[in-house]
Amino acid sequence: MRILVVNPNTTQAMTDRMVAVGQTVMGPGTELVPITAARGVNYIASRPEALLAGAELLDLIARHENGADAAIVAAFGDPGLKAARDLFDIPVVGMAEAAMLSACMLGDRFAFVTFSHTLERWYADCVAKHGLGARFAGIYIPDAEFASVLTVQDEIIDDLVTIANEAIDRTNADVVILAGAPLAGLASKVAPRIGAPVVDPICAAVCQAEMLVRLGGRDNASKTIPAKDAVGFSPALSKAIAGG
Amino acid sequence: MRILVVNPNTTQAMTDRMVAVGQTVMGPGTELVPITAARGVNYIASRPEALLAGAELLDLIARHENGADAAIVAAFGDPGLKAARDLFDIPVVGMAEAAMLSACMLGDRFAFVTFSHTLERWYADCVAKHGLGARFAGIYIPDAEFASVLTVQDEIIDDLVTIANEAIDRTNADVVILAGAPLAGLASKVAPRIGAPVVDPICAAVCQAEMLVRLGGRDNASKTIPAKDAVGFSPALSKAIAGG
Amino acid sequence: MRILVVNPNTTQAMTDRMVAVGQTVMGPGTELVPITAARGVNYIASRPEALLAGAELLDLIARHENGADAAIVAAFGDPGLKAARDLFDIPVVGMAEAAMLSACMLGDRFAFVTFSHTLERWYADCVAKHGLGARFAGIYIPDAEFASVLTVQDEIIDDLVTIANEAIDRTNADVVILAGAPLAGLASKVAPRIGAPVVDPICAAVCQAEMLVRLGGRDNASKTIPAKDAVGFSPALSKAIAGG
Amino acid sequence: MRILVVNPNTTQAMTDRMVAVGQTVMGPGTELVPITAARGVNYIASRPEALLAGAELLDLIARHENGADAAIVAAFGDPGLKAARDLFDIPVVGMAEAAMLSACMLGDRFAFVTFSHTLERWYADCVAKHGLGARFAGIYIPDAEFASVLTVQDEIIDDLVTIANEAIDRTNADVVILAGAPLAGLASKVAPRIGAPVVDPICAAVCQAEMLVRLGGRDNASKTIPAKDAVGFSPALSKAIAGG
Amino acid sequence: MRILVVNPNTTQAMTDRMVAVGQTVMGPGTELVPITAARGVNYIASRPEALLAGAELLDLIARHENGADAAIVAAFGDPGLKAARDLFDIPVVGMAEAAMLSACMLGDRFAFVTFSHTLERWYADCVAKHGLGARFAGIYIPDAEFASVLTVQDEIIDDLVTIANEAIDRTNADVVILAGAPLAGLASKVAPRIGAPVVDPICAAVCQAEMLVRLGGRDNASKTIPAKDAVGFSPALSKAIAGG
Amino acid sequence: MRILVVNPNTTQAMTDRMVAVGQTVMGPGTELVPITAARGVNYIASRPEALLAGAELLDLIARHENGADAAIVAAFGDPGLKAARDLFDIPVVGMAEAAMLSACMLGDRFAFVTFSHTLERWYADCVAKHGLGARFAGIYIPDAEFASVLTVQDEIIDDLVTIANEAIDRTNADVVILAGAPLAGLASKVAPRIGAPVVDPICAAVCQAEMLVRLGGRDNASKTIPAKDAVGFSPALSKAIAGG
Repeated sequence: MRILVVNPNTTQAMTDRMVAVGQTVMGPGTELVPITAARGVNYIASRPEALLAGAELLDLIARHENGADAAIVAAFGDPGLKAARDLFDIPVVGMAEAAMLSACMLGDRFAFVTFSHTLERWYADCVAKHGLGARFAGIYIPDAEFASVLTVQDEIIDDLVTIANEAIDRTNADVVILAGAPLAGLASKVAPRIGAPVVDPICAAVCQAEMLVRLGGRDNASKTIPAKDAVGFSPALSKAIAGG
Repeated sequence: MRILVVNPNTTQAMTDRMVAVGQTVMGPGTELVPITAARGVNYIASRPEALLAGAELLDLIARHENGADAAIVAAFGDPGLKAARDLFDIPVVGMAEAAMLSACMLGDRFAFVTFSHTLERWYADCVAKHGLGARFAGIYIPDAEFASVLTVQDEIIDDLVTIANEAIDRTNADVVILAGAPLAGLASKVAPRIGAPVVDPICAAVCQAEMLVRLGGRDNASKTIPAKDAVGFSPALSKAIAGG
Repeated sequence: MRILVVNPNTTQAMTDRMVAVGQTVMGPGTELVPITAARGVNYIASRPEALLAGAELLDLIARHENGADAAIVAAFGDPGLKAARDLFDIPVVGMAEAAMLSACMLGDRFAFVTFSHTLERWYADCVAKHGLGARFAGIYIPDAEFASVLTVQDEIIDDLVTIANEAIDRTNADVVILAGAPLAGLASKVAPRIGAPVVDPICAAVCQAEMLVRLGGRDNASKTIPAKDAVGFSPALSKAIAGG
Repeated sequence: MRILVVNPNTTQAMTDRMVAVGQTVMGPGTELVPITAARGVNYIASRPEALLAGAELLDLIARHENGADAAIVAAFGDPGLKAARDLFDIPVVGMAEAAMLSACMLGDRFAFVTFSHTLERWYADCVAKHGLGARFAGIYIPDAEFASVLTVQDEIIDDLVTIANEAIDRTNADVVILAGAPLAGLASKVAPRIGAPVVDPICAAVCQAEMLVRLGGRDNASKTIPAKDAVGFSPALSKAIAGG
Repeated sequence: MRILVVNPNTTQAMTDRMVAVGQTVMGPGTELVPITAARGVNYIASRPEALLAGAELLDLIARHENGADAAIVAAFGDPGLKAARDLFDIPVVGMAEAAMLSACMLGDRFAFVTFSHTLERWYADCVAKHGLGARFAGIYIPDAEFASVLTVQDEIIDDLVTIANEAIDRTNADVVILAGAPLAGLASKVAPRIGAPVVDPICAAVCQAEMLVRLGGRDNASKTIPAKDAVGFSPALSKAIAGG
Repeated sequence: MRILVVNPNTTQAMTDRMVAVGQTVMGPGTELVPITAARGVNYIASRPEALLAGAELLDLIARHENGADAAIVAAFGDPGLKAARDLFDIPVVGMAEAAMLSACMLGDRFAFVTFSHTLERWYADCVAKHGLGARFAGIYIPDAEFASVLTVQDEIIDDLVTIANEAIDRTNADVVILAGAPLAGLASKVAPRIGAPVVDPICAAVCQAEMLVRLGGRDNASKTIPAKDAVGFSPALSKAIAGG
């Protein structure tokens, strides 16, 4: 099974790490294909950046869809997820979506723990977009400074553990989601120190993508998008729109 | 990995079929353990029956929890699911819950297709209980008569296909869930005839239970239930409550 | 008029007290019949315990329904209420339900005051189950310790008064509900010290049950539950299910 | 116990009938005091009329509050209810409110049956105002013509029964509320012909008002309205506002 | 274009100030006609007062509707707005409504800043009545004392600026609405000191009323109110109801 | 006042028509600047197309922002609206948003009338995105065929009038919004034939944009987006992101 791990940020090191973390939980016979955006910003933290990243995501899937069984939107916040699902035949799973839906089977309510206040609005939007507000216990962010999104999970690990336990105490959250691609792989390190199950979004996304393929994919999804000529996009994306 | 398939109905043939269907999607190394209620009714179709089945479910898991990695509530409607999740350390997944959450990754809205109007209220309650009303496109039920819940999926197969396609046309549903244990295994037979992805709840439940175990289970779930003496239950269930 | 006061806990002293308190508000000609669970725990404080208590409730009503005009679920949280309403012909009223609906006629929003944090989740579930979240101003619980649920209302009476007034100040709640069977009878003692109307749930339940009987009961409620054979229950409960 | 039955319409014959119907369910020692608006329209059927009726209601209660234990807003739609509750110390109950809250204890969802399409919007507003939309199965109105609101319940009795049963069939409503003062007293005549419990709003209002008085009234309701001089109202109403 | 500025309070100085402030944003050719209540209180601060003011509003518009192109309900809280819209043919705009809808185009969420805690409930009701709860970031009120509603905006100007900036920081509100007629004209003075766009409700109302007239008004609004005789009102209001 | 009319479709004739229609309602001194997408499709009708159009919109505003007082997203569905609002300092108004908010001041509920079923999902998403579901009476679409989006409003004018009146009758909608850029200018032609006020979205958008500028714009909007380097975009867009 061939699953695209599509990072709509331009930071390839982040893609590589997500693939490495995903490989620790993937089943036998699964291949994770790393794909990184050529256009965009190094790390999405706002709605304008998410919008541009979503457009880039469509282009990236269009270029690599051939031979793939599923695709993962490898940015927490799921830019472009629903548009990709409407445009392509293969299952497409969002990291935030997969984390939240998996968390729903571990308890009534989940909290997000992340590392930067600038993400707060975009992540809250994402919960609402999925209609999961009733299961959401809020976003918890330590005030700690850090040098780089590539090392933030080690730099402020103790602050993240502390705020996670505070989230559990203050909100009766049953599950903690470590939100944001820069935290990929952190869950397995800190789980023993946190008083509730901890979900790693890239792991959830890999498992959920595998599951959708095993359940039969979505080849017979009803297409509601009429084919249409497009101007100014890559040949692959234009072809996807034309053949919609 | 050892997963309990706990049918809180008394019909063992139904349990056996669900296990057989689940085995078609389970991963290597997974064992599905069939468990059938000793007390109860042959097929749950109302809230009073679901309440009694939920109590029986707690007893059945308490008796078989030892050595199990996860448990599936093998009745659509998920009787006793949240109580079981609060009482036991292993992951517990509901068939309806797993089907609905999986469907959420295949499209915006899912419809239920089932075989008897007496299930309508209980199933609608179940959607609301999971907070997924915004993703729900309604319940569709053919008017066809049938002789037995054990054979209903063959008896009225054409009616079920017809109503499923009607549900898609009338509601813009993106996904169809074939709801009810008696429809286990039907999805793979009818998928090519239905204009949207079709979810088989027992298959979704097996995959989701495997996923939760792979993601680390929930051993560190915060326990909020104080230990307590109980009177009149089986030793296993009393012990679970006492050790809560 | 004969009203069953069905306590699905095993503590008969609590049943007796609720009946005594209910007698202070009941109308002439009303008889309150105390019934206490034989199976279960001494005081319900979690979802698993509530599920088991709900099953016991159905059995208790089935055994005593003959000659009764109505039944009260005499545990705040209303375990088994909706299932009982579906199974039996007489009106069935929940203590939490009656308290909340009565409070709705005294002001826009009600707060719960109770004595133990372990009840918080179950009580919040109960508000949601009744669809009254928009009228709910939250649960307020003092941090005071106490020795026994039988004496808690006297042990921490001052703490309960203080937290009730804090709830009113902080939330603009218009009404206070003293939640939990152990607080039965407290309202009349503390009302003069609290700056908003105070509702005693057992009093509300007795009055509401009387009202439903006076309004004509629900003999012609539409039965949606088909009769069915059941295995392993008491003869009375099996008969109720069989005759459903 | 002295309960004001305040009809904010100008039709005294309607007030008298509501009092007569209420007397069939009131307890011993209760007195129902008929009060009819001097200003207004003969039958409220729109928001402007309801607004004017609500203002008149405040004046009527202010004039008759002395010596009363409770007041009923004797117009389905409850004009002025919440304002009256804020202004006066005695319990105030709305006919629609009492009917809906009583119905909530008889089943999950209630339908309104009424006699004129012009009432539809105002009645739907009323459900929303009370936050009970989740329990509402809709408004059902026969297309039959009638000569007078004073005789409509006899003129189209068969049409009302037919539409009530259609409402039950089409919506799975558990309870029918016969909405509108002109239908007062109809419930007892048609209940045997309708396949669900039928609530008569004036009967529910009388019982609920009695209950609130028995539970202790609301003398200690927290007053949030500062006293204030008013110009142009009756002395009684000006005094109520001044003493707020 | 002739727009009525109808103040349902009795304080003419407030009407005059609102007209003066509105004139600073109105377009060329617009005339603002000040109208002040003869009956009522000097400043509305509760639901009973709002109800009475709403009735007065209908009378005032009925008396002055002739020759007017639109009317503004010149009291934050919008007493009588929806009833006026149902009764009259010209566009009617509420100050709170216009401020909130305008704010929705400046950001995701708006906060209210006002000067007195007694307004809190009535203003919160108003947000809910307009169905805008999801866009609402709460009400912020300084604890400062003041001598008169006519001078409050100058007396506590620094406290209002401080609390506005606190509201932005604490809630991530994108827009601040200076709520309440006594704050008319304050926005232009304090905007440079507040870290988000500030909306002045009377300015928003004037612009929105002009816009509705430019867009064609609502002459062909579907009338659902049947004409009806009314007793006890002014000839103008009786005529409006009669000609409904 | 200089307002950008940014059409994120590639059809310049549509932009020109929207500008011409907008000029019929704009105030003196307003200039409407037509801008048409270079990349994209000729008419957006799905989520993937809307996503790509939203990205193009950001680029177009970045290129033309200099000297502009406000921008209109000139495609019903408002692609990119909220991202543009976060990125740029000038007011940005969506055609759908402006139409819906204006309609909220004309009645309780609005219906959409449009010309193609493929738009249904995207338009429904748009209502939800603005949090206005409670005011929405649904989308009404005639089954009529048409040759071109440029002439559709004339080709099926009678069908559109008929379905608009059906929408009013069936749903009690108070206002009709003629949804979709191809219907720009139709409102003034058909208003006399439709039994409720009719809103033309481009007219509403022009008026609302003018109003926001008159109210002071949003220069002091709190910026939550940190500046950031971007790769692969136009210099203007990169600069907007860098200077965010």
